[in-house]
Order: sequence, then C-alpha cells, then structure tokens
Amino acid sequence: MKVGFIGVGGMGSGMARRLVGAGHDVAVFNRTRAKALAFADAGAKVADTIAALARHADVVVTMLAHDAALADVVGRDGGLVQSLAKGAIHIAMGTHGVGVIADVKARHAAAGQILIAAPVLGRPDKAAAGELGIVPAGPGEAVARCRPLFSAMGQRIFEAGPDPVAAAAIKVTNNFVLGCAIEAIGEAFALVRKYGVDPHLMQEVMTEGLFGAPAYKVYGKIIADGAYDPPGQKAILGLKDANLALAAGEAVGVPLPSGNVWRDRLIGAVAHGDGERDWAVMALEQARASGLEPT
Amino acid sequence: MKVGFIGVGGMGSGMARRLVGAGHDVAVFNRTRAKALAFADAGAKVADTIAALARHADVVVTMLAHDAALADVVGRDGGLVQSLAKGAIHIAMGTHGVGVIADVKARHAAAGQILIAAPVLGRPDKAAAGELGIVPAGPGEAVARCRPLFSAMGQRIFEAGPDPVAAAAIKVTNNFVLGCAIEAIGEAFALVRKYGVDPHLMQEVMTEGLFGAPAYKVYGKIIADGAYDPPGQKAILGLKDANLALAAGEAVGVPLPSGNVWRDRLIGAVAHGDGERDWAVMALEQARASGLEPT
Amino acid sequence: MKVGFIGVGGMGSGMARRLVGAGHDVAVFNRTRAKALAFADAGAKVADTIAALARHADVVVTMLAHDAALADVVGRDGGLVQSLAKGAIHIAMGTHGVGVIADVKARHAAAGQILIAAPVLGRPDKAAAGELGIVPAGPGEAVARCRPLFSAMGQRIFEAGPDPVAAAAIKVTNNFVLGCAIEAIGEAFALVRKYGVDPHLMQEVMTEGLFGAPAYKVYGKIIADGAYDPPGQKAILGLKDANLALAAGEAVGVPLPSGNVWRDRLIGAVAHGDGERDWAVMALEQARASGLEPT
Amino acid sequence: MKVGFIGVGGMGSGMARRLVGAGHDVAVFNRTRAKALAFADAGAKVADTIAALARHADVVVTMLAHDAALADVVGRDGGLVQSLAKGAIHIAMGTHGVGVIADVKARHAAAGQILIAAPVLGRPDKAAAGELGIVPAGPGEAVARCRPLFSAMGQRIFEAGPDPVAAAAIKVTNNFVLGCAIEAIGEAFALVRKYGVDPHLMQEVMTEGLFGAPAYKVYGKIIADGAYDPPGQKAILGLKDANLALAAGEAVGVPLPSGNVWRDRLIGAVAHGDGERDWAVMALEQARASGLEPT
Repeated sequence: MKVGFIGVGGMGSGMARRLVGAGHDVAVFNRTRAKALAFADAGAKVADTIAALARHADVVVTMLAHDAALADVVGRDGGLVQSLAKGAIHIAMGTHGVGVIADVKARHAAAGQILIAAPVLGRPDKAAAGELGIVPAGPGEAVARCRPLFSAMGQRIFEAGPDPVAAAAIKVTNNFVLGCAIEAIGEAFALVRKYGVDPHLMQEVMTEGLFGAPAYKVYGKIIADGAYDPPGQKAILGLKDANLALAAGEAVGVPLPSGNVWRDRLIGAVAHGDGERDWAVMALEQARASGLEPT
Repeated sequence: MKVGFIGVGGMGSGMARRLVGAGHDVAVFNRTRAKALAFADAGAKVADTIAALARHADVVVTMLAHDAALADVVGRDGGLVQSLAKGAIHIAMGTHGVGVIADVKARHAAAGQILIAAPVLGRPDKAAAGELGIVPAGPGEAVARCRPLFSAMGQRIFEAGPDPVAAAAIKVTNNFVLGCAIEAIGEAFALVRKYGVDPHLMQEVMTEGLFGAPAYKVYGKIIADGAYDPPGQKAILGLKDANLALAAGEAVGVPLPSGNVWRDRLIGAVAHGDGERDWAVMALEQARASGLEPT
Repeated sequence: MKVGFIGVGGMGSGMARRLVGAGHDVAVFNRTRAKALAFADAGAKVADTIAALARHADVVVTMLAHDAALADVVGRDGGLVQSLAKGAIHIAMGTHGVGVIADVKARHAAAGQILIAAPVLGRPDKAAAGELGIVPAGPGEAVARCRPLFSAMGQRIFEAGPDPVAAAAIKVTNNFVLGCAIEAIGEAFALVRKYGVDPHLMQEVMTEGLFGAPAYKVYGKIIADGAYDPPGQKAILGLKDANLALAAGEAVGVPLPSGNVWRDRLIGAVAHGDGERDWAVMALEQARASGLEPT
Repeated sequence: MKVGFIGVGGMGSGMARRLVGAGHDVAVFNRTRAKALAFADAGAKVADTIAALARHADVVVTMLAHDAALADVVGRDGGLVQSLAKGAIHIAMGTHGVGVIADVKARHAAAGQILIAAPVLGRPDKAAAGELGIVPAGPGEAVARCRPLFSAMGQRIFEAGPDPVAAAAIKVTNNFVLGCAIEAIGEAFALVRKYGVDPHLMQEVMTEGLFGAPAYKVYGKIIADGAYDPPGQKAILGLKDANLALAAGEAVGVPLPSGNVWRDRLIGAVAHGDGERDWAVMALEQARASGLEPT
C-alpha cells in the first residue's frame, strides 16, 4: 500500500519503520525535517511537503502530539483536506480529543475523504517492536483495507465501530483511568507514610494482589522511589490529557469527579514548579497537601 | 501452639482449618455457636465462652467483621483483656480502623498482653487454600513466635514493623486504592457508553495493557455485565471501608480527595436503594449522575 | 419557671443571665465550678451537681460544646436521665450532631422526659443582648411552654416542628453553608491574587453586591487581612462541624461534595500546623495549594 | 464624547440609553439590526457596520455575551482592530475569560489602540437605572478619560489597575463565588429535606443571619420554590461561567475544587435535560443525587 506517514517522533518513528519493514511503500514527513531524513536509509521516501506526501498516498497516517497540530496538518493550505484524493484514508493514531476528531472527520467527509481514528496503547519500545495495542474506528470497509497496516504496527487490534470519535473516547478514557490510578497511589502512599510505613512496602502489598499490573507496578515504583526525573510523560502533558477527558465528559453530559481530583493535583504540581517532571508528581503534590516532606 | 480462634465466618473458617491442619491445638469460639460446632469434626475444640477459650491459649486470633465487634470481644466482661494471661498474644486479622487498633493495643498493653494486627489480602477461596497475603505488625519477638501460624494461613507475609496500627493503615489503604479504582472504572464506562462504546470493549482495552490485574478484571466485568447481585462485598460495607480510610487520613492530617468521591458515590448508591448489592454499584450511581439508563 | 442551666461558657453565660434578668428561678451548673460561682451575684443559684440541679428544675437547658459532653451530662450516673422528673424538659441549645440528638431523645423518652433541641444563631455579644436566633424543635406542647425562655434569650424564633433532630439538622446545615462560603472565598482570593489583584478589592466587589452579608464581610476581611489570630472559631472545631455535616448527610443518603472540599482544606490546614488558628485558615491552605505565599 | 456601542441586548440597551441620557454622542451597532433601530428614537445613531461605527468613535463599548463574539467583533475583516483609530479606546464590558481579554489586549496594542476591560455587576434593571457596579482596568490615562462614561452607567466604580486581564479575573471570580454559593444552597436544602424540614424554613434561618444578601435571598427562594422557569441565567451559560473560572485557575496554577463541584452539578443538570432552565437547577441535580423527588 502507498502510505504517507506524518510525525516520526518517539512513537511514530517505530511505527513507520514497522510499515517499511512490512513492505509498504512509505513516504515520511516531519515538521523537523532531520527526523524524516533518518528514514531515507530505512527505505522510505522523504516528502518535502504534506501536499506532496498526500498526493501520492492511498493512506496517510498521522502520529501527532497535540490537537492543534492535527487540526493544522488537516486544515492548513496544502494540508490533507486539500491534498488527499477522494476516497483516500487518513488514519489519526495520536491521542486526540473527541472534539478535534469530530471536526476532522467532518472536514474529510466534506471533501470525500475518510477518517479512521486509531489511537495506540503502549510506549516507544512496543511501537518499535510492532507490539502496540491499536483501537481503530471508522467506516468498516476502510478499516478492513487498513488491517495490514494495523497488523504491522500492533499485536492486538480492538475494532471500535464505524465512528472515529468512539476510538478517541476510548483512548482518552484509558488515560483517565490511569491518571486516577496514579492519583490514588499518591494519596495512598501519603497516608501510609504518616503511619510510619515505607511506601515500598505498600507498593509490594498493593501489587502482590489486586493491583499486579503495569499501571501500579510502574507508577508505584516511581512514586515510592521519588524518581520523577527524567519524565516518562511530563506533568504538563498529563494535564492536557486530564482536560481532554473532562471535555469529553462535558460534551456528552458525564461528570467525572475523579477526573477533577486528577486535574487539580496536576495544576497544583505545575504551580509548584513540577510541570516538566513525570506526571506522577501528583503524588508529590499530595504529599505537600498532607504536610509531608517529599520522599 | 495453643491457639484460640474467634470468628469463623467465610474467611475465618478457612483460616482456622488451616491452623488445625498444620497441627496446632485449636479452640474455636463463634457468636453463632452452630458455626463453631462444625469444627468439632475437624479436630478443633469448641469453646463455650471467650474467657474459656482465652484462658487456655498462648495466642488468640480474631477474624471479625466490624470494629465494634472487636472492641466488644476485647473489652467486655469476660473478654480478652480480662481473660488472656500476661504475655499472651492477640492477633487481630480482620480489617479494622486505625483508631480501634490503637485503642485495643493500649488496653492489652495495660494488662501486660501483646497485640499483633495482621490483616489479610484475599477472598475466602484463598483463605481455605492457605494462600492469603498477610500483613502482620507488632512487637518483633511476638511476630517471630507467630510465624508458624502465618505460614499456615498465608502464602506471602509482609512484615510491617513493631506497631500494629501500621498494619491496619496498610489494609485500610489497600481497600482505599481498590475503592478508587472501582469508582474510576464506573466513571470511565459511563463516559464511553455515551460515545456508543460497549463497556465490554473498554474492559478489554483496559485490562489488555496497563490494568491487567484482578481489581480491573473482576470489577470491570461486574460493571460491564451489570452483575451486582449477589454481592461480593455489599455497598454498605464498602461505605464502612471508605469511612475507615477517611478517618485514618483525618487522624494524621492527610486529605484524600479521591476517597471523598468514592464515599459520595456509595452514599448515593445507598440512597437509591442499592446498599445490599455489590459495592461496584458505584458505577450504577455514576450512570445515574450521567443521565444513563443502568446497564 | 424553675430553670437549670448547664454550661455557662462564652455563649451560655450570656444566655443564662438573660433568663435570670427575665425573672426566672435559675440554677447553674458548670464543669469548671468557678464559672458557675460568678452567677451567685447575678441572682442565680449554683448547683453542686447535675443531679441537684435537675431535681429542682422544670426545664434544664444545656449549652455544651461537644457531642461527647452532651452524651455524658445526659447519660452518666447522676445525669439528666436519672435525675429529671417525668414530664420535665431538657432543651439542648448547643450545636450537636443529628446522631447524638436522636440518641438523647430516645433516652429521655424512655424515662418519660422530653427533649427539645434549640440550637442558636449568633455570637456571644448577641447572646448577652438576648438577640440570638433560636431554632427550637420538639413536641408542640413542650415548645409552647418554653416560649418565654426562648423570648428571653432570642430575637427571632424559628420553630422547626416536633422532632428535635430536625433542629440539629438545620444548625449543622447552616454551619455547612458557612464553611462552604469561607472555602469559596479562599479559592476566590487565591485566584485573583495570581492576577495581581489585591484581595481587599475583591472583597469590596464581592460584598458590594451579591454577597453583602456578614458571612462574606467578616470572613472576607479576615482572609484579605490574613488575620487568623486570635481565632473566632478554631480550625479544629471547624473540622468537627464539617464532620457533623458529612455524618448528617451519610445518615440520610445525601452526598455533600462541597462539604468534602471544606473538610479537606481543614484537614490540610491542621496538617500544616494551623489547627488552633481561625478556621478561615482554609484560605491559607488554598494559597499553599496554589503555590502562593501566605498573605 | 463620541461613543460607539456594540451589543444592545438586555444589559447593553440599558447601558447605552444611560450614555445617550448623559449627553454623549452615541452610535449603536447590533448583530440583530432591529434592536439597534429601537435606538433611533432615543437619540442615538444606528451604524450599519462595525467599521462605520468604529471610524467615528473615540471610544467603543462592547457588551457581548460570548468570548467568541468578542473575538469576532475585534478581529474580523472590518472589525475593531482594523477600524479604530490609533489611540482609540475599546471598553469590553461583557463577562469574558482571561484568555480572550489577554488576546484582544495584544491585538489592540499591536494596532496602537487601547483596551479597557470593565465588566459589570448587576442585572438589567440596574443597568437601566445606571446603578451597576463597574470594574474597569486598563491604562490609567485611558480609564481616567472614560470616567464620565462609567459614571453614567454605574453607581460604584472599582478601579482595578492597569491590566484589563485583572478586571476579567475579578468578574469571573465573582461568578465563581456565586456558583459555589448556589451549589452549597442546593446541597443544604437536600440535606434538611431528608430531615423533614421545609426548605423555606431553612431559607429563612439562613438569610436571617449570616447570609442576608441577594445571592442567598434570590437563589434560596428559587430553589425552595422550585421556580427554575423562566430562567434568569440558563444552566448552559452557568456552565460556560464555570469553565471560564476553571480555565482562569489553570492558567495561573490555582486548583479550584469548589469550582469542580459547581461544574459537575451543571454538567449533570444538562445531562438530565435542564440546560435551558435557571442555573439554580444545580439544586435539582443535588436532589437527584440524594434520591429525592424534585421539589
């Protein structure tokens, strides 16, 4: 398949290489051109413009960090709406809000193009290994055509129906569950510390039984160790995720009180200068609120 | 070792049988005497009173459902404080608040007796199989003497230092983390349902990756299925657990905003008549708050 | 009328003097006897025991600071239940939780005595001037008999029906509304301070229009001035009030999310060492949570 | 002074008439032209376009309901930035977010124009009577020049310094305090209703003392009466205000937990179909959450 790939950062580069490796005819565009050039050796073309990339592709994948970047790539002069052929497919694989996905879907539809949202689960190492989880949603025939691409990039594919907005909602919600879990760990560890308990012990008890899963193992350890630098995900980006979840809730009439707690802790963390550290600094903020010294 | 065992309900009966099976000299007392009599065949003695049980035991284990029951068994006329010998050990293995444990510890100390708090992790099937997690805390020498008992009942022992209050805090906190997780699942499923997503799909996505642990597998399924009856743990007991956590926080100056959300959903669930159903009815209450029909 | 008065602290002394001044035959009891003795000059008798006071009274007023003190005065050996005649009336005028009032009501009923709860609105200066608001609730005939007492102590009487628990609920709820208002002012002032606005200006804008009432004038000024010492009401007592409100809610199935916020800020304030300062330190705690220096 | 006035709805029409009445040379523009035409009789000019209005004015007042409307009037082709003379003043008197005010300020500054933000306190009757509170902020000399206009429209002027963003923050915050108060009343009334208390009685108790101010008198009555129709302010607009406050907080690092409660109740109210009713439907939503029938 002729595939254009926009956005070869930490996640996107691994994903794009998997497509090349699976034999697809891949062209790459990146805002920072140097990152795209690295793909020349890997057997991919490097496009000078989005328009050039889009005109030669059946399918364009975007893997972008922000809603604004997605809106821009789609709607700008020379962007995807102007440049993709009728019937072409845009697969948006970044984590995006339900609002921008609904908007991009409408713009493509008006131009006779098709949007699939296919957010991913997993970190860069999984992306490089083709072991991501992928949640595609879009018109059935289009999703079917793209299955070879999903198979090249992911290990488990969770098809989520015909509306790309649903896939965005699932991803935003999965992040929500994670944010709430980290916040709860932060509260929990502050609580036991006041009773003289080493948080590492609490971490062991917690993950031994009910919570023996990566969310608790990874973030429990970061918090027990106080290892917020370098960040996996920065607090300011976690705050963006919290806002995406709350906005998704407001749009359909769902109050998310746990999400408010999550957001407030991140706002407080940023106010205390921890915005560039790992978003598990929610736990630091909870410690402050409890009159505890940071671990 | 000569062991008295008070409270042979769903959890306690499995634990007591493990002690008998390990060759200890066990006497059993239960408020509902019929449950105790069942142990005669198993090779245990049946005590008529707490005093009789206590006078012949080096160690008394209590496995009681409520703080009030514990306070009563310890402090009543003919209770443990009056009946245990100096130097005897009381192991409180139920889930109790930090306040009652601190109080019981002081009463035993005044009588020259020793309290170990050793709350457990796991459901009745694990208790029967001797595969519980156990979190003992109390004076080191006493905990050391009781290790054979813990080994008979549990698979993993997390020793939590010399103060029994710390063990109570750990258990209360573990329940707190669970309550917050269930609440988050409830909010999450309400959110995706409004975007047309089957909660079973959300459940799959969630537990595939970050949340592949019993807390999410068990409760995600209950909520997706709407299977709140019969209850594993009743909502009114979940509310008790929430109050234990919040009281533990207040006592040491730890605000627990996620705990408030947990407690409020349970209060609302009880107000809507769901108090006797599984405490995952938090999710039903979240659905109501979102204007959704119950699943 | 022959009136016994128990508890002549800051509020009670003014109230008792008003009863003496209105010509009632008043006997006084106070745990700290010196405070009671001061009433000898004022024309009141001083009782040595609660029993002595109760045996000679048609009506006993209690004005006590804590639920535990009320329960003790009523239930102890020689307390009101034992000492009051059948048909005698106990008017509980302190701020008490719904639970203890329900309990005291039942104990009096079992002894053929009558409980009126009649919590008051106003500070000690209003008590001394007989200008309190009073919210009596109890059996109609009993309330009617006590009207002369209420008129001596208060300016506005809000009769709240036959059940004393209703009056307790009203008072607890009024405190709840106040606690939430103070918390909101604290959040508001932290917010405008970050935009370079002097909180005194915000205070002026706020009280000019919609909020021109004592709650906002008094507490807005305390917070804008940072004048938390000496306290009007201490933070630790404010926390008690928050717990009374939340317990009243739980008992009847009413989640109070604003009350949670109120309680959490007070827990945090206590954790930061502000427990003995004015309960408006909620605003200090909010400032801390926002990374602001205290005013 | 030559004044252009954009936006003569419920509030703006009263304000503009006050300016005409004070002898200023007023031209009016309104999106719905019929409303502007009504001003011809009152002695004002009617402008056909914003550009025409702006070119002949020293000062243009906008009184617009939404941030988007303000951004459009300022930034569109033929809008204020393009049409105002250098040194001309734009007074934005609507309730706007801190973000749009910062943005509009920058756009005017780049064009050599001056922005004053001067949000108002009071309802349409106050506007018609020239009895508004006004909170102007902007460059000192410009504010001084506009004082005659503020005096014509308002009774109390609260000058808030040189930065228009500060005035926006004050107004948004005042709304925040109101929203939190209404939410607290809603929670309070649900609580006492469960104890058999008529909310009208609670309303009387509350406003007699600490809360004898319009916020509590007006909204307490609406809630006790269940009189949500026709709306003073619609729930969906209240939700906009809540979002403005929370966004103002996030922008400067201030968590607003009471604001979250406010927002969540409005989201729930909208989800239950009450979006077009008075925003005091927060109390209805609280009643639902408590398992109460609507009043």
